[in-house]
Amino acid sequence: MSKSPTERTRVKRMHENAKYDTALIHAILDAQPMCTVGYSFKGLPYVTPTLQWREGNHIYWHGSAASRMLEACEETQVCVNVTIFDGMVMARSAFEHSCNYRSVMAFGTAHKVIHRDDKEARLKSMVETLFPGRWDMLRPMKEKELKATTILGLELNEVSAKVRSGPPIDDTDDYALPIWAGVIPLQTVALQAVDDPRLIAGLVVPDHVAKFKIG
Amino acid sequence: MSKSPTERTRVKRMHENAKYDTALIHAILDAQPMCTVGYSFKGLPYVTPTLQWREGNHIYWHGSAASRMLEACEETQVCVNVTIFDGMVMARSAFEHSCNYRSVMAFGTAHKVIHRDDKEARLKSMVETLFPGRWDMLRPMKEKELKATTILGLELNEVSAKVRSGPPIDDTDDYALPIWAGVIPLQTVALQAVDDPRLIAGLVVPDHVAKFKIG
Repeated sequence: MSKSPTERTRVKRMHENAKYDTALIHAILDAQPMCTVGYSFKGLPYVTPTLQWREGNHIYWHGSAASRMLEACEETQVCVNVTIFDGMVMARSAFEHSCNYRSVMAFGTAHKVIHRDDKEARLKSMVETLFPGRWDMLRPMKEKELKATTILGLELNEVSAKVRSGPPIDDTDDYALPIWAGVIPLQTVALQAVDDPRLIAGLVVPDHVAKFKIG
Repeated sequence: MSKSPTERTRVKRMHENAKYDTALIHAILDAQPMCTVGYSFKGLPYVTPTLQWREGNHIYWHGSAASRMLEACEETQVCVNVTIFDGMVMARSAFEHSCNYRSVMAFGTAHKVIHRDDKEARLKSMVETLFPGRWDMLRPMKEKELKATTILGLELNEVSAKVRSGPPIDDTDDYALPIWAGVIPLQTVALQAVDDPRLIAGLVVPDHVAKFKIG
């Protein structure tokens, strides 16, 4: 399945790197929860980092009910970006230096999750998406915690991916130059989990922590 | 040195994590070139990932002179965000889960670097910031490449950092629960450099590649 590009999602620069394939878009969103949300507040542009998670054809993000970002985004146009930085691409000229990356841009109107049970279901989905099996291990949510949490969602109807991979592309004449060129691959790694200093004795790191991967 | 927060840079949520210390802001910007630039285009919010580099009290980013993002940002208000994702913070309740991160938000009017020599100096600075010693190894820039490149700059006059580190902070009563809590540290690592398949024989990986670090 793929989506036709719109005026906003049609990639103009380096359009050979543009992708509109839904499976690829979902794979990028699922690989990296960290995103930035772009919105207007009093007519000025803001970009706020937060975590997103995907359920089917929607992404969600959340925070305090008192968050300026969430209030400013509600029922208005936003742009959500996820970028996975995969490498530095080093060419024989400064001009042809580049990056390898996988990136998604999603546009649309952010909607607020209103009903209590929907909010709880979305938060459970966030935890289970990141850490399968964790929700049922946790102390159950309190009603005041649900009330203090705002969740926004965005339907993935206007969305594009842009991907670059592989070696530098140099000018034909430049390949003969004695200049090192290639790629420095970058990878985000999850290091060994660190116990909370106040952890009660005898608890071991659960599988969903030991197996956590990102990027 | 530190800057007083403005209406835009005063951190409202989790304000105990807010920092206005210039050295810290510079350190975050210098540690992670990948940023997102937020801007308005035809009245709608856009967020575009790109690389930034810092020279003194300015950051710069660049791209094709035909870039929609660069054209839309020129001489208008932007918000640039750099976020380094340092870890997943796992608490005993869903509500207290969090992230460790170092983040900078910079606001202001993006200005275009106009003069040829200034453009070349900025691009040299970008290359040398990322890869010390590389500029003089490269095939010199061509005039048409300089013309095809737009560079935007932002003075760091309205900027804040937000940092979270350390273990989860749980409700007092929850510390007694038999639930694993702690931090999964995340780190971006530069893997071993990959030679361009078309590299001429006998070239070795330069120091600025072998020693490249990020985050």
